[in-house]
Amino acid sequence: MTSNLAIKNNDSLYREYQYCRGVFNSLTQGLSAEDMVVQSMEDASPAKWHLAHTTWFFEEFVLKRYQPDYLPVDPNYRYLFNSYYNSVGERHARPLRGMLTRPGLAEVQAYREAVDADILTLVDQPHPREQGIADTITVGLHHEMQHQELLLTDILHALSINPIKPAMRGELQIPANSPVAPLEFIRFDEGLYDIGANQVGFSFDCEGPRHQCYLQGFCLANRPVSNAEWLEFINDGGYQTANLWLSDGWALCQSEQWTAPLYWQQQDGEWRQFGLHGLRPLDPGAPVCHISYFEADAYAQWAGARLPWEQEWEVAAREQPITGNFQEDNCWRPLAGSGSGLLQLYGDVWEWTRSPYAPYPGFKPSAGAIGEYNGKFMCGQFVLRGGSCVTPIRQIRPSYRNFFYPHQRWQFSGLRLANDI
Amino acid sequence: MTSNLAIKNNDSLYREYQYCRGVFNSLTQGLSAEDMVVQSMEDASPAKWHLAHTTWFFEEFVLKRYQPDYLPVDPNYRYLFNSYYNSVGERHARPLRGMLTRPGLAEVQAYREAVDADILTLVDQPHPREQGIADTITVGLHHEMQHQELLLTDILHALSINPIKPAMRGELQIPANSPVAPLEFIRFDEGLYDIGANQVGFSFDCEGPRHQCYLQGFCLANRPVSNAEWLEFINDGGYQTANLWLSDGWALCQSEQWTAPLYWQQQDGEWRQFGLHGLRPLDPGAPVCHISYFEADAYAQWAGARLPWEQEWEVAAREQPITGNFQEDNCWRPLAGSGSGLLQLYGDVWEWTRSPYAPYPGFKPSAGAIGEYNGKFMCGQFVLRGGSCVTPIRQIRPSYRNFFYPHQRWQFSGLRLANDI
Amino acid sequence: MTSNLAIKNNDSLYREYQYCRGVFNSLTQGLSAEDMVVQSMEDASPAKWHLAHTTWFFEEFVLKRYQPDYLPVDPNYRYLFNSYYNSVGERHARPLRGMLTRPGLAEVQAYREAVDADILTLVDQPHPREQGIADTITVGLHHEMQHQELLLTDILHALSINPIKPAMRGELQIPANSPVAPLEFIRFDEGLYDIGANQVGFSFDCEGPRHQCYLQGFCLANRPVSNAEWLEFINDGGYQTANLWLSDGWALCQSEQWTAPLYWQQQDGEWRQFGLHGLRPLDPGAPVCHISYFEADAYAQWAGARLPWEQEWEVAAREQPITGNFQEDNCWRPLAGSGSGLLQLYGDVWEWTRSPYAPYPGFKPSAGAIGEYNGKFMCGQFVLRGGSCVTPIRQIRPSYRNFFYPHQRWQFSGLRLANDI
Amino acid sequence: MTSNLAIKNNDSLYREYQYCRGVFNSLTQGLSAEDMVVQSMEDASPAKWHLAHTTWFFEEFVLKRYQPDYLPVDPNYRYLFNSYYNSVGERHARPLRGMLTRPGLAEVQAYREAVDADILTLVDQPHPREQGIADTITVGLHHEMQHQELLLTDILHALSINPIKPAMRGELQIPANSPVAPLEFIRFDEGLYDIGANQVGFSFDCEGPRHQCYLQGFCLANRPVSNAEWLEFINDGGYQTANLWLSDGWALCQSEQWTAPLYWQQQDGEWRQFGLHGLRPLDPGAPVCHISYFEADAYAQWAGARLPWEQEWEVAAREQPITGNFQEDNCWRPLAGSGSGLLQLYGDVWEWTRSPYAPYPGFKPSAGAIGEYNGKFMCGQFVLRGGSCVTPIRQIRPSYRNFFYPHQRWQFSGLRLANDI
Repeated sequence: MTSNLAIKNNDSLYREYQYCRGVFNSLTQGLSAEDMVVQSMEDASPAKWHLAHTTWFFEEFVLKRYQPDYLPVDPNYRYLFNSYYNSVGERHARPLRGMLTRPGLAEVQAYREAVDADILTLVDQPHPREQGIADTITVGLHHEMQHQELLLTDILHALSINPIKPAMRGELQIPANSPVAPLEFIRFDEGLYDIGANQVGFSFDCEGPRHQCYLQGFCLANRPVSNAEWLEFINDGGYQTANLWLSDGWALCQSEQWTAPLYWQQQDGEWRQFGLHGLRPLDPGAPVCHISYFEADAYAQWAGARLPWEQEWEVAAREQPITGNFQEDNCWRPLAGSGSGLLQLYGDVWEWTRSPYAPYPGFKPSAGAIGEYNGKFMCGQFVLRGGSCVTPIRQIRPSYRNFFYPHQRWQFSGLRLANDI
Repeated sequence: MTSNLAIKNNDSLYREYQYCRGVFNSLTQGLSAEDMVVQSMEDASPAKWHLAHTTWFFEEFVLKRYQPDYLPVDPNYRYLFNSYYNSVGERHARPLRGMLTRPGLAEVQAYREAVDADILTLVDQPHPREQGIADTITVGLHHEMQHQELLLTDILHALSINPIKPAMRGELQIPANSPVAPLEFIRFDEGLYDIGANQVGFSFDCEGPRHQCYLQGFCLANRPVSNAEWLEFINDGGYQTANLWLSDGWALCQSEQWTAPLYWQQQDGEWRQFGLHGLRPLDPGAPVCHISYFEADAYAQWAGARLPWEQEWEVAAREQPITGNFQEDNCWRPLAGSGSGLLQLYGDVWEWTRSPYAPYPGFKPSAGAIGEYNGKFMCGQFVLRGGSCVTPIRQIRPSYRNFFYPHQRWQFSGLRLANDI
Repeated sequence: MTSNLAIKNNDSLYREYQYCRGVFNSLTQGLSAEDMVVQSMEDASPAKWHLAHTTWFFEEFVLKRYQPDYLPVDPNYRYLFNSYYNSVGERHARPLRGMLTRPGLAEVQAYREAVDADILTLVDQPHPREQGIADTITVGLHHEMQHQELLLTDILHALSINPIKPAMRGELQIPANSPVAPLEFIRFDEGLYDIGANQVGFSFDCEGPRHQCYLQGFCLANRPVSNAEWLEFINDGGYQTANLWLSDGWALCQSEQWTAPLYWQQQDGEWRQFGLHGLRPLDPGAPVCHISYFEADAYAQWAGARLPWEQEWEVAAREQPITGNFQEDNCWRPLAGSGSGLLQLYGDVWEWTRSPYAPYPGFKPSAGAIGEYNGKFMCGQFVLRGGSCVTPIRQIRPSYRNFFYPHQRWQFSGLRLANDI
Repeated sequence: MTSNLAIKNNDSLYREYQYCRGVFNSLTQGLSAEDMVVQSMEDASPAKWHLAHTTWFFEEFVLKRYQPDYLPVDPNYRYLFNSYYNSVGERHARPLRGMLTRPGLAEVQAYREAVDADILTLVDQPHPREQGIADTITVGLHHEMQHQELLLTDILHALSINPIKPAMRGELQIPANSPVAPLEFIRFDEGLYDIGANQVGFSFDCEGPRHQCYLQGFCLANRPVSNAEWLEFINDGGYQTANLWLSDGWALCQSEQWTAPLYWQQQDGEWRQFGLHGLRPLDPGAPVCHISYFEADAYAQWAGARLPWEQEWEVAAREQPITGNFQEDNCWRPLAGSGSGLLQLYGDVWEWTRSPYAPYPGFKPSAGAIGEYNGKFMCGQFVLRGGSCVTPIRQIRPSYRNFFYPHQRWQFSGLRLANDI
């Protein structure tokens, strides 16, 4: 699991497409049609909607544009399964995605199959605009992988609301708890660094352009903060101490009555964590997970440290091999890291950085509807780096920028400490 | 379809139970598990929840109380499927009913079957508390019938939110439009009348005690207001004329931007109505339907009339046979009435009265949890009378009091005009 | 303080107008311009707004209609100071009344003086439409008295929000606590009674028409429920017992975290009550006050009784002289009642009845804008009877119907128990 | 008006204190006690509250800490007039600041006088902790100046809600419209720049530490965007074109129905702008004002440009003299700029930058309660630079960072375009 998705010719594109689109089928094992239709909050989407929307992407941006005389599977789908592309027209209101009992799951699966057949036929033949097709399909597959992760985080949220706390499916393997490496800080020098995606392989527009950036010297923790460490924060009154918190974070902490990460609950004095495996005892060495930016920042304050800038993270991470606990491992929960050196930069948990999600110097959005992919979200969100235990590994690069609002907690989000020198 | 449900002995109770519980199976034909899990608004409940909650009623109030050593099908159901009975304990939050993807539909159906088998066994044998069992089952069957109607109104609402406007199922028969009887008023004398349920047959606690009531002379329209008449109100600016409306109604009319009954929509200058048959042209002679109390009252003002008091309706209705367009007719939309005399007091549409839902003189709620059934809702709601095209006929009596908040529109609610002499 | 306002000719109308309009000046003693501009919640209005709106009433409905060539004091006032009269046109949004820092208090006082001078001139001269003028002014004076009470209840609410809990003014007399009469029930026979205003003296349209009503036999408590009795309800867990409450009331009790009447607070284990005199120890014998309908109804349940119907109250009250603790007594808090027979039907606290505010049989709203006065509020509210310690005595009649929503608590509202025989 | 506030010894501190605290008296001319008590939205505070809170700052952080045996003017004020300092304890809820009719304006003015007398006495004498006192008073005076600006923006908002659209006071001078310089872009080279406050003179903690930053080459417009240019944006459909907007901005633009800057209104086809002078015709050459970050960003997109980074602005501005249209000019509205070179970097309007308000590298908040001043707001806000026509000039430095949420519009906020080279 060390290679990134790199699409070089139509033959590999054909196989990549088949592989990537097929992953969804394995992800939804154990889910009923009922599980897949509901929407548990506005931030989340139904699993069926993920299946349909990712298909819509290929129909709208590939088939309708590159296949002559293409007839849509259903003309309503253009409206129903658009997420936020204004240039594709009006769309179904986001908070009502969970009301779409029709088309049913079987129809959506048939939609996937029909579009897949057409795409594979298209890819299999010479085409005067072959490069455009390949480029758009490549974006579509990376988009697909993002939704594969969201499907799991959204299902987790939906199940968490159910008072009977069901596991997503029975057979998920649960590794034994393992010891965690002691916390250390690793030092990096000040200097001018190149930041952002280089031109080799796929990257999203927001990862570039590559540019120079001056960084002061800094230290980075060797691993993410663990559940055991987070318990110390809780027990030291971290959730009751205003001065540790950003002002908006403190207001939210009080109004939402936060006392622990999302999905933690105390039963008979013992902490348990709800996950795709159901409700389980906390694994002390595993990275803390399902925390908001506000909590991450308060913890760093409490620990006498700070969150890293995304550039600092990137400088450290690009020297590391992309290995770790990813979706393909089928574990789907963060695990304790052991060993020496920088650990777990990739996989396990997304790491909140203190960098607001902003354009890099010289950033220009891609042309056309795909230009709505990133730039228009550059306001009010913070960057997370590194991927999680439910992220497809082929999606991850050192330059990959994930982003969420500081109050959001339903992703597999954790933190790694940093410090000035 | 003229007889009311009257349960006289265990043999008929056995058959009534079988019949009534079996109706749900026919109602849900054409619905998928997806259709049956979602909740489209707080007022509505998922179809699956209706199936489960009505079963919960028999398990909680009959099996747990009368069957020695009864083992619950699942201990979680006590919590999950309680609607509002405080004396049965805590319960799942109403707005989250649509999040219960588990237990799945098949499990809920198995729950129904298990409880039904136990109930029928219980009924089939001598029991020292036979009368208590029979009384509670009778309440449970009337409760079941109320939820049969709600299942249809709630599914209608859920489908109405779907932009593709699907029909509930294909094969619903659609009678041709028919002419409507001309509007006439029928006169009733002032005097002391007995109001409320007599002691023959089943009735809910709120329908009694029977008591004397002095009524001034009044007139009652021979039939409900029709769609064609409602269009005149619309075209005369009824929805834009403040002085026709109750103050709270006018505020709501403006904030919700009401311009027509719920489920009406204008397309290319023509009005269409969404129903269980999908989106269809308006039937001019059919009773107007899916209106709030506020709209009914404004219409009556505009028409120089008023809504009847529930006592007036009851005085008129108890002389009429209980026949009409009910759920059993499988038409499931109101139809134009023709003929002479008082028409359509029963069936087609519930008729808003101007009577706030209040206790009758001397009213005492039933003892125990079943006492939570009616009395605690006697605030802020208005009484509707007569039943609708989706009401089971066996549920209807002249004394039957239905009640909803004045802003609610998703029931098959219409109006009949009245006047002082 | 025993006579009601009865206006017989222009001479007395002149004096009544002078007297009634002058009362506002004495009420606002001790209030600053700052006190008088703010609006503490949507239900309440600023004191300055009360002064202006009551003046607007006379300008709009008398001067503009009956005085030829009348020039408005300021054309903006038609818009600014209209409360809810749709037929007078658009108006300033109710929740923004507290933003009207301009016109300032001095300008509003000048507005009052200008209109008063014109009205008195008009009244002092023969006029071809003399009766219309007299009738409208009479309505205006009763309207004025209603706002005199509201000014005090609204100021009380505004002061209650201030953490320093200021008294409205220093010199309010505080009578010593006195013993309260023991609770007794007085019996009334069933029968046909005449209900509603007779034609002697002024009454609002909603008090009539006088009509026959059949009442079952009933008992009425000799006095309102006292603070001491209410404490028993609290101490017996009344605010924590779901089954005592109406369903909507219980939801509100929980979401608002009610544990006592409005303006009660516990300090060092002792209950205190905030009033126009500031924060004071609870007077055990005084009638409980500032309770919602929901609380009143729950208390009655707890006490094994019920609230009276408004007709029962009226039958009892019309045999009693209109005396009691009213606004003119300058005490402005309810006092314990002693003596024998029916006590405190008038004054001290408004008494919630279980009667929804609905039209009497044959009710027709008055013509014109004044027809918006009552009828359009006949939905969702409950009737209170008898007047309070801040009600002007001249406003009260046995047939007088006050009405508020069941959740509202900022009026001087209490309860008297009733029972079936 | 070119010198910044620089406090060198106690003598100048004494004079600075007297001068700065006296400014508030001149600002509130023309305001009534009523104007000064109300709060028109949660973001704004009452003028009286500004007077009290700035005084509270000196009482809490200077007198209570440095004056032995200091007796507070009123112990309630610690609670009432704390804004957001958690370390000073609980405080009055922000949305309720407008309910504080007591203490009245006269009491608050007496509070100011009492504290001023004590502070001046303290400053006038030798003190063992003289430097601490001087430093804290200096912070307090800069805090005072910030509230002087807020008082004017908050009063403007409160008056804007009044349907009669009153001017704040009559005598404000209104300069004639003047021509505006043509738009040009001025070029700056890439390179490593020092950013942030140097150690000479006062600055807030968030302005430092001074640090190196690598900037790509950029262009900056010679002046802010004008009203005339903004009209082109409006007329070109800028407020209706989704693709120009950030996603959150577009959602807000639609839900709030924005069609123009705050305080603009169209009357008979002509645009007018409400300001402290009342409702006036738009001055075409004056900088556009009262726009949100979202609008500024959408405009820049439309114009084929971008907003500057705050570092770019600082590099350009530190070469310019601090002159411009500031509060002391008593004009209180932005004016057209003419001439050559970089114009209006200081004064007229705050300029939105695209920089999220984030800590500089190495930032540490000040110790103690004053450390709550800036750092805890570093989330979700954007930096504005340069000061406005209602900012005291002595408050402005090249390194000064103002910050607001991207949706906020009630400040005098405009924009200047930038571009990559």
